[in-house]
Amino acid sequence: MGFSFEIIKEDQGSFRRLGKITTPHGEIQTPVFMPVGTQATVKALTPEEVAGQIRAEVILCNTYHLYLRPGHEVIQRLGGLHRFMNWQRPVLTDSGGFQIYSLSALRKISDEGAVFQSHLDGSTHFLTPERAIEIQQALGADIIMCLDECISYPATLEEAAAAADRTTVWPGRCRESHRTEGQALFGIVQGGMHKALREKSACALQQIGFDGYALGGLSVGESTEMMLDIVEHAVPLLPENRPRYLMGVGKPADLVECVGRGIDMFDCVLPTRNARNGMLFTRNGNVIIKNARYQDDERPLDEQCACYTCRNYSRAYLRHLFQAGEVLALTLATVHNLHFYQELMSRIRAAIRAGRYAAFAASAAARWREGERRRRASATKSPGRSG
Amino acid sequence: MGFSFEIIKEDQGSFRRLGKITTPHGEIQTPVFMPVGTQATVKALTPEEVAGQIRAEVILCNTYHLYLRPGHEVIQRLGGLHRFMNWQRPVLTDSGGFQIYSLSALRKISDEGAVFQSHLDGSTHFLTPERAIEIQQALGADIIMCLDECISYPATLEEAAAAADRTTVWPGRCRESHRTEGQALFGIVQGGMHKALREKSACALQQIGFDGYALGGLSVGESTEMMLDIVEHAVPLLPENRPRYLMGVGKPADLVECVGRGIDMFDCVLPTRNARNGMLFTRNGNVIIKNARYQDDERPLDEQCACYTCRNYSRAYLRHLFQAGEVLALTLATVHNLHFYQELMSRIRAAIRAGRYAAFAASAAARWREGERRRRASATKSPGRSG
Repeated sequence: MGFSFEIIKEDQGSFRRLGKITTPHGEIQTPVFMPVGTQATVKALTPEEVAGQIRAEVILCNTYHLYLRPGHEVIQRLGGLHRFMNWQRPVLTDSGGFQIYSLSALRKISDEGAVFQSHLDGSTHFLTPERAIEIQQALGADIIMCLDECISYPATLEEAAAAADRTTVWPGRCRESHRTEGQALFGIVQGGMHKALREKSACALQQIGFDGYALGGLSVGESTEMMLDIVEHAVPLLPENRPRYLMGVGKPADLVECVGRGIDMFDCVLPTRNARNGMLFTRNGNVIIKNARYQDDERPLDEQCACYTCRNYSRAYLRHLFQAGEVLALTLATVHNLHFYQELMSRIRAAIRAGRYAAFAASAAARWREGERRRRASATKSPGRSG
Repeated sequence: MGFSFEIIKEDQGSFRRLGKITTPHGEIQTPVFMPVGTQATVKALTPEEVAGQIRAEVILCNTYHLYLRPGHEVIQRLGGLHRFMNWQRPVLTDSGGFQIYSLSALRKISDEGAVFQSHLDGSTHFLTPERAIEIQQALGADIIMCLDECISYPATLEEAAAAADRTTVWPGRCRESHRTEGQALFGIVQGGMHKALREKSACALQQIGFDGYALGGLSVGESTEMMLDIVEHAVPLLPENRPRYLMGVGKPADLVECVGRGIDMFDCVLPTRNARNGMLFTRNGNVIIKNARYQDDERPLDEQCACYTCRNYSRAYLRHLFQAGEVLALTLATVHNLHFYQELMSRIRAAIRAGRYAAFAASAAARWREGERRRRASATKSPGRSG
């Protein structure tokens, strides 16, 4: 069983759609949010929790991290990523391009590839497009990504153009060197905030031909409006019959907006990272669970939420676990935030299915604004208690 | 339904026995090991993992910690400890005496009670026998403990005697002030390493009458031989028809030895704390999972172990999680170590049931010695690889 993408329903007069991705490890309903399992584990959860409590159909792992530690050859010898981490559903690995941009101390990009220093021990590494594919083939994910160059924001047109030039050459080298049957290879559209460069990149990728197309180099510091503008401009440049993946985005409101503009796949560390910092998403706005106001609060985080955490624990207990520095705090918060994202994606799919996406998006946006307003008002009312 | 203790089988010519404790939250097969849930959570596990993966029938929580944070009144308002932490099986709380001894910066013990400084914020607190009972009644555990005074090791006879004097007065005040029906109250035999003081303490407790009897003030730095000597001396001083609880002990070999001498109940942070440090118990000796030798090791930690961790993960993956500082490392290691302890207790009970305890204990001891010998030999063979 290989990779395929089927469009189940298109929403008239827009680019948004319902779809289904098939992979060697199972199916993925789209639009989908992929929890991030950077180092071959979704932080603070067992795979059973990710599959059973969160019902995630696919997760993302990071090639950069796994290449440096424990090493892709170790994982290959141990039977590949799925077996290594005890996760039997689909996995997507990114190529490492974004982490070279965001994590490594020194990096030098040439037409040949990227030289970078490990953020762990300062050792020097050379990643070429071919090597990025080789590593991802060893890891054995269901979907892998071409090596791309992510540029800083803001970037001059010259910087962006130099990177975009490489971004039209590297994908061909990736495609050439990719050998694993059944494993999908996605191209990544780059070009910074320059629409002409995005067009050039999207066009070059399509001439090579990929199983899916990603938008990279967003969520790097630009405004939400600018990000949405690039997405709106780029989606129509991509082939309709392939999944469209927006990398590293984003906030709940971003997902609603970007699905509306035709995105099928997302990943972001926000729900998991915020959970570990005690920032929890609810239908009524964000909860900073360490606040003293929750000390005696016997209510669940979100009274309408059906997640394991909300069914079994009070805000007071969650606050206690965070105050006490207990590991269970991280687990319960992560379960809740990822469940919130999964539930949102499920409502997004239902709204497309029912042909009422515009109304759904408007009401979701209004609810978040209202929740945020109420949270701020209540924080202002009792400033002494928000420790 | 209140508290009761039933002896199921006595082992002829010894003090060891099989028993069953009944509490308002269910039954406990003895001899039993109680995982420690210091701050109202067994560190790194969900209650479902503690009940389902570990099959623990009872856990211990710490009055000292919960009194300081979040406060016993908060827990009482939220429906008591069971509801607060989502644990529906029996709970035992200790009185705080040991933590005042081991954790608080400054402490002053008088006949009235103990003044101590919080290890969290330096605030001053006064704990009397009556107050210790009041706090534990608010927490609502199934089994609570008298306030005791734990003395340093080594202690002079004078120091030990002064403490033991109080230890004959405080239990009466605890008993007097205890009101909660169905909640068991245990006395604690003190007296340091002085047998005459242990006798005096045990005698005084029996005159008051408790639902169970604990041996405190052990595992404070004395040798294993000395600890076993005190246990052997103290057990015959206790009434046969009540549970005997050895507090804060211990290593797997200690459990086997002390059950042999008549102990019914144990608690210790060793399996959970060692797990978080990467020290894992196996039938073939201890494994330091961070060692480089495990980098490519596809075997489970313990090939004979049926725990969740050993059924699903390689040593290489566990090592990776520890090296990468991942939370899942703590969860998987804790599951394994607690499962090891539960499995040991289950084999201990089976051996008593079958009337072959002496043979079981001898073979367990021989196996541990052999495992330790092999581990050391193999560590010597490849010194360069034990990073």
